[in-house]
Amino acid sequence: MSRWEADAGGRLQHAAMSLYFERGYDDVTVAEIAERAGLTKRTFFRHYADKREVLFAGAPAFQAGVVAAVAAAPADTSPIATVITALAETAGAQLAQYGEWARARRDLVESSTDLRERSLIKSADLAAAVAAALGERGVAPGTATLTAHAGVTAFTVGYDRWADGNGAGDLPTVVRRTLGDLRAAITS
Amino acid sequence: MSRWEADAGGRLQHAAMSLYFERGYDDVTVAEIAERAGLTKRTFFRHYADKREVLFAGAPAFQAGVVAAVAAAPADTSPIATVITALAETAGAQLAQYGEWARARRDLVESSTDLRERSLIKSADLAAAVAAALGERGVAPGTATLTAHAGVTAFTVGYDRWADGNGAGDLPTVVRRTLGDLRAAITS
Repeated sequence: MSRWEADAGGRLQHAAMSLYFERGYDDVTVAEIAERAGLTKRTFFRHYADKREVLFAGAPAFQAGVVAAVAAAPADTSPIATVITALAETAGAQLAQYGEWARARRDLVESSTDLRERSLIKSADLAAAVAAALGERGVAPGTATLTAHAGVTAFTVGYDRWADGNGAGDLPTVVRRTLGDLRAAITS
Repeated sequence: MSRWEADAGGRLQHAAMSLYFERGYDDVTVAEIAERAGLTKRTFFRHYADKREVLFAGAPAFQAGVVAAVAAAPADTSPIATVITALAETAGAQLAQYGEWARARRDLVESSTDLRERSLIKSADLAAAVAAALGERGVAPGTATLTAHAGVTAFTVGYDRWADGNGAGDLPTVVRRTLGDLRAAITS
């Protein structure tokens, strides 16, 4: 059994993604997603607040994983090294499996203002959570905010690069390399 | 006559801001904004697509100013210097006048998911436009994207710092200093 078939949440995600790819995001209803998954609308709304949220189902677990990794980093690790390691390793553990979907999902998100807004707020919330986790480690607020933003930028741009290659290459390596490129861009 | 009273768009902006501050964003209607401004709902919709957009009235002119400044920078200026100069100087010319409003407006935006999403997409669009303008100058796409993100991060975090001080201090200086702090955070 694939991970998609394992539970109702996963079946709804799979059904939604398939329908969005086939017909475009705007034209698909929650009723159609539920029907495709062989479930009811009520079951859909037990799992997801709306038809946007089904595309971001992994975001809470990813954020929690990153925050836990920041908290668990050795005390003598610099803030930026702490953040990029947390992002790269959690991405490798939780997101790399979506290789074949990553580009199509990214293109789908880019096709809709509604989805772009939701995606951007997830990234902003992630940056805020990372900044707070750095604060817990005693990093000053100004440095924490900027380090978190830099890390999340390297992660999102790196993830896009990886998605552009349809998930070829090692996601953590691509994220780390993107931070190196960001550093080069900002110090030139 | 203050700049707010000079035209219908400005009067509607002033009325909306006042009402949002008084009663919170969610509880205010377009009809009430128009009434406060002594104008009709039809006039409101000639100027703004919805009650969110009235808070971002300056964004298109700001983006156009930044893009023009990137295009006009001397050919031998580095990408990051080009971007931060364009952002800092355009901010100084167009946004510094909003000193007394900046913090209240920022707090208002932070109070609403709807407004946060709109604000984030404006920043993302600004970064994309800056990256495209760097591309026109012959900067490679990867560097252009990361440089634009770094610059917009320095600008948005710097703007927040300036707003936290209720507009005290020189906005372009605060933005440039924030880029220096970002560079320090990412190279530590």
